Amino acid sequence: MIIKSNFIFTKDKDEFTIEENKYITVEDGKIKEIKDDCDKEYIDYSDKFMIPSFVNLHTHAPQFLNRGLGYDYELLPWLNKYTFVTESKYKDIEFARKYHEKFVDDLIRNGSLNSVIFGTIHRKSDNILIDLLKKRKVFSYVGKVNMTMNSPEYLVESKKESIDETIKFVEENKDERVKPIITPRFAISVDSDTLKKLSDIAIENNLPIQSHLDENLDEVKTVSELFEDDNYASVYYNRNLLGKTKTIMAHCIYMNDKEIKLMQNPNVFIAHCPRSNMNLKSGIAPIKKYLDLGINVGLGTDVSGGNNESMLEEIRASIQVSKLYSIYVDKNTKPIKSSEAFYMATKGGGKFFGKVGSFEKGYDFNALLIDDKNIVFDRNIDLLDRINAFIYSADDRNIVKRFVLGEEIY
Amino acid sequence: MIIKSNFIFTKDKDEFTIEENKYITVEDGKIKEIKDDCDKEYIDYSDKFMIPSFVNLHTHAPQFLNRGLGYDYELLPWLNKYTFVTESKYKDIEFARKYHEKFVDDLIRNGSLNSVIFGTIHRKSDNILIDLLKKRKVFSYVGKVNMTMNSPEYLVESKKESIDETIKFVEENKDERVKPIITPRFAISVDSDTLKKLSDIAIENNLPIQSHLDENLDEVKTVSELFEDDNYASVYYNRNLLGKTKTIMAHCIYMNDKEIKLMQNPNVFIAHCPRSNMNLKSGIAPIKKYLDLGINVGLGTDVSGGNNESMLEEIRASIQVSKLYSIYVDKNTKPIKSSEAFYMATKGGGKFFGKVGSFEKGYDFNALLIDDKNIVFDRNIDLLDRINAFIYSADDRNIVKRFVLGEEIY
Repeated sequence: MIIKSNFIFTKDKDEFTIEENKYITVEDGKIKEIKDDCDKEYIDYSDKFMIPSFVNLHTHAPQFLNRGLGYDYELLPWLNKYTFVTESKYKDIEFARKYHEKFVDDLIRNGSLNSVIFGTIHRKSDNILIDLLKKRKVFSYVGKVNMTMNSPEYLVESKKESIDETIKFVEENKDERVKPIITPRFAISVDSDTLKKLSDIAIENNLPIQSHLDENLDEVKTVSELFEDDNYASVYYNRNLLGKTKTIMAHCIYMNDKEIKLMQNPNVFIAHCPRSNMNLKSGIAPIKKYLDLGINVGLGTDVSGGNNESMLEEIRASIQVSKLYSIYVDKNTKPIKSSEAFYMATKGGGKFFGKVGSFEKGYDFNALLIDDKNIVFDRNIDLLDRINAFIYSADDRNIVKRFVLGEEIY
Repeated sequence: MIIKSNFIFTKDKDEFTIEENKYITVEDGKIKEIKDDCDKEYIDYSDKFMIPSFVNLHTHAPQFLNRGLGYDYELLPWLNKYTFVTESKYKDIEFARKYHEKFVDDLIRNGSLNSVIFGTIHRKSDNILIDLLKKRKVFSYVGKVNMTMNSPEYLVESKKESIDETIKFVEENKDERVKPIITPRFAISVDSDTLKKLSDIAIENNLPIQSHLDENLDEVKTVSELFEDDNYASVYYNRNLLGKTKTIMAHCIYMNDKEIKLMQNPNVFIAHCPRSNMNLKSGIAPIKKYLDLGINVGLGTDVSGGNNESMLEEIRASIQVSKLYSIYVDKNTKPIKSSEAFYMATKGGGKFFGKVGSFEKGYDFNALLIDDKNIVFDRNIDLLDRINAFIYSADDRNIVKRFVLGEEIY
């Protein structure tokens, strides 16, 4: 397949790479080359532009129904009053089938064609979520959540059940495109034994791990009371849950220097969720600093801490909060540039999946076709302005086609 | 006209007033009553809900084409490098006709049916904007902008021209629904004589005034170098431009106590534009404090400091930044509640227009019909959750009808 269009991506976080009026050749779903000329048949999208599809590194499928609810509370009471109650309903697999389908549709509508998703503790419902994602052909990781302590009686597992169900979940899911991910909810919800056993499962099966880390000061304090480890990150690290296999830690707002050291590992990714961090009054993560240290950072919508599945709103929020950070928290930290935010939403998070999130040779051709005529109108605007205008003022209606491995989906 | 629906509004900023399954009677465009029963013919929207339409207290029509551009700069360089260049193009009235039409359409699409708008210095183009707004039947104020100093040669007026054109503009526009507003750009752009003469015009014609105030620290410093007045607010106050007639001041981030005192006047309104204030790295205005002092506050999208015309995104941003304010600036200031944000976007800004922005008796029936089935699905959710979910996760597609004085428009 050859497509003629304008290709905008971030090979490097510091600037957009813009290939204007070029021809991209896709073979077996991967990008073979971008050329100036073409003497074969091609599809012509040269009035529009294409970008790598978004990589959503952190969201909770069973919280889709809670978008916008409970934001008068901070993390821990919000979990107890809103989140856990809703998640417990996903024990009912018919309930799960109905609403996970809405979630998956919304995820794809918003352009996230590679996603890393929390399910619930309910293996069978998580399997339904996996089936729905397979049917829609989007690359994803789904976690069966583990919760063995400090959880309400209607949403908790015994240690044995938690491990047994996780092993079954891993055995049941061997698909190439939609894969399992080991998912201890966070240190508060999972006992030390179970944490260790989960890392054994991850390492044996070479599976990635996801959890939450340093999101909220009360959470950090609670973890320090529950565990004797030096700090929150080391609770995971000391139990082989941070970086032995690929690992995503959501939030990472309140990290000390020792913790930051532990994150400086090519296997470790931070999922930055700036809207969630505002909604739950958590704070602003020092993302510019992490990027400058070479730590992997991607973006996550974190529904329903985040208020909807829009990666575009998340991208702009990541820039906006970084400006407030540089005014109110640390004047020496520069704000995030739009290219850096775009990079996090594509290639930065994409690294978690492999060669994903860019239009370089060998990368998966997971892409969005953008029609920006309601922004550009009839004006002759350069592509750098067009990508910035798109980032800041567009929504999913501007995404007119979605491709996974070169195949149009949705 | 009688409509059966669920009516959600904020009589008071501290809580939503919810009239479930009620009948509203509209006479001559105004609300007569809301009743429990009805024995006459009515329109049935009981599967949806209605809210007062949004009041957009501050936006710039000629910056519509710049959405998303130049946010690597702060206010003053951004004005010089991006804004002024684009505004100067509106000297061409055919250019203005074409793009002001797009702007007006976008404004209404986003549910702003009462708006206060900056034009440019070009009277004829501003008149075109007024005509477009009249045709679409939305209540609005349009300002012919005054700029007599510290402005580029391609976007500046002589003192005489500035006043003469303003007088003509006022004489030409006597419509009841779309009215002129006196609009000195900001103290940096307008000399002291012209400021005084503009207030004479405002007072003689009983016209309101709009400008910018305390948006950015470099701006505040520049004003203090240009004027000998005690502070930025008093530059306006001492020239009868703050509160003699109804006045909107956009931003008000960096106010000292003396300035805040000047704002405590029932004629004075603050237009809070939190997204613009992030995009241009201006800061966070202490809005909760202003609300508690009884100062009038409304919301403004402030395109193109603000990145699009979505009042919904502005509402959520107003809550989000208030949470960051309470973490990083003043721990004693509480965040804004969703009812307060909604109030600012409706009744708070609506006061500038009169009885606007609420569903109380005697108020203009300017309203939006909301279809939230892509949020609620088939669940039985109470209306308080529905309004919060709407505020946080909806967009203009959820607005399915728009009414001005009881008449459906758009």
